[in-house]
Amino acid sequence: MTKTAFLYKSDPLRGRQWAEVFRRAAPEVDFRIWPDIGDPAEVRFLAAWVPPDDLATRFPHLEVLFSSGAGVDQFDFDALPPGLPVVRMVEPGIVRGMVEYVTHAVLDLHRDMPQYRRQQQLGEWRALPVRPAGERRIGVLGLGSLGQAVLAQLAGFGFDLAGWSRSQHRIDGVHCHGGSDGLAAFLARTDILVCLLPLTDETRGVLNRELFAHLPHGASLVHVGRGPHLVEADLLDALSTGQLADAALDVTDPEPLPAQHAFWRHPRIRLTPHIASMTQPKSAAEVVIDNLRRFHAGEPMTGLVDRQRGY
Amino acid sequence: MTKTAFLYKSDPLRGRQWAEVFRRAAPEVDFRIWPDIGDPAEVRFLAAWVPPDDLATRFPHLEVLFSSGAGVDQFDFDALPPGLPVVRMVEPGIVRGMVEYVTHAVLDLHRDMPQYRRQQQLGEWRALPVRPAGERRIGVLGLGSLGQAVLAQLAGFGFDLAGWSRSQHRIDGVHCHGGSDGLAAFLARTDILVCLLPLTDETRGVLNRELFAHLPHGASLVHVGRGPHLVEADLLDALSTGQLADAALDVTDPEPLPAQHAFWRHPRIRLTPHIASMTQPKSAAEVVIDNLRRFHAGEPMTGLVDRQRGY
Repeated sequence: MTKTAFLYKSDPLRGRQWAEVFRRAAPEVDFRIWPDIGDPAEVRFLAAWVPPDDLATRFPHLEVLFSSGAGVDQFDFDALPPGLPVVRMVEPGIVRGMVEYVTHAVLDLHRDMPQYRRQQQLGEWRALPVRPAGERRIGVLGLGSLGQAVLAQLAGFGFDLAGWSRSQHRIDGVHCHGGSDGLAAFLARTDILVCLLPLTDETRGVLNRELFAHLPHGASLVHVGRGPHLVEADLLDALSTGQLADAALDVTDPEPLPAQHAFWRHPRIRLTPHIASMTQPKSAAEVVIDNLRRFHAGEPMTGLVDRQRGY
Repeated sequence: MTKTAFLYKSDPLRGRQWAEVFRRAAPEVDFRIWPDIGDPAEVRFLAAWVPPDDLATRFPHLEVLFSSGAGVDQFDFDALPPGLPVVRMVEPGIVRGMVEYVTHAVLDLHRDMPQYRRQQQLGEWRALPVRPAGERRIGVLGLGSLGQAVLAQLAGFGFDLAGWSRSQHRIDGVHCHGGSDGLAAFLARTDILVCLLPLTDETRGVLNRELFAHLPHGASLVHVGRGPHLVEADLLDALSTGQLADAALDVTDPEPLPAQHAFWRHPRIRLTPHIASMTQPKSAAEVVIDNLRRFHAGEPMTGLVDRQRGY
């Protein structure tokens, strides 16, 4: 059997945790951590957040490129060999973290916690009217594995749920809208909008004035996609007119957000430093080992990217 | 059949919503709203938050006293006729609100949101280490209908769950501890402590220095019981030494909390004005009507209070 070298090029601390999982679960794999690449001709598989620029020439026998994180928007697809399979990271650690973060953010907005924090600053004891969850309309943009897991968790609270995706989906208990034709109707019935879209040429700048205008007045935003989805000036305008009441942002452009940026001290913005969801090295390595098995068996890999769509 | 008058003595706006439910679902009941009590001798049932002082003499034929809210600690049991059945409000609106509030508060602490809010004030972009839910130990004090509903919801996130109650309980997936003997072991394995105890002579002041000392250093508190459970000075001490990292309080003593109180501006305390859970008039009236049916049929009423225990 030809030697199979697997090269890991990302955070080296996490790489050592991957190596440990490979040693136990896939000892036949020659697992290497960048920059100790050995003979490049033996590298058949690469897991990277940012692949090297000279990927095609340096690793002539590369068979699969794995992203070491949830997104692939950091890859320049035009610079990758055309036929090279690219695989996103779909692993339970990412899903669990995102479900926790979004559930917290939705409950925070649903139960008026931003307003209660402002009242606390003022020493003001005042109960606000409560809306039952069944009358609170949550809308999730993006119905991939993360969007679906978030909706499943929110269903346990009895929220009125909807989702939008480029293609039409069917999910029990969720009003599903599809395509650009379905977007306006989806937005018109959404009190709390959760953005879980992938970043592509099509979705860059999608959180803009026109989209916000379709939401009911006083809706709120939870943004856990990618920074460039959001047109910053349009968010600030929508918050200043009250079209949007509050926003929770976990992603910005650039990251880290410069210390003098207006978002940091905006009273209607809650900002976290891209921590909603992190790949867990152990479960990530297990998912990649399972994908190697699928690849060798000719089965479809979990998270295989459609390069036309970009995700 | 003798005329059955039901007297409601609490917020009159809510009383009109109760009246509407009774009109549809129990039209045989003569539903009256304080102060229009009619002939006091006809009053067999009273729903009140604060009953009148001369209850026994004014309503000689009273058969049941219903609390219009979740607690009965506002009742002076010694002033009530000894044989009078007293019923707490156990209704789905209260449960849903509490589940939302506590889930939010637990996720807020689990995901270090108090620290991220402090960092936002400083313009500091810094990710904190993430602990998986399975390694986060949640402990719920009080295993009544609210405590059990909260634990069931938290189970969906994969937290490591425990509960403590005066008497030993068995709940699937929850480490149950019982009695004063079991309290120290329960506290020693609790990272986030949720207080959902009833307020009785036994539980007054239970959240004190000694209890906090049994928690792991750096644990946090979610207090959704009653204000007098908490010894304020002991909380402030525990926060200042770091024995407690953060506290979320929805109840205080007194309420409203005076504007100059130290809790309002404490950087480690998140304060809400007793809004975790509110009786929903419609479902509350439905539960009371069901209890009237149970009472007439000789079946046990939902929420019947053991006056020895005080809840």
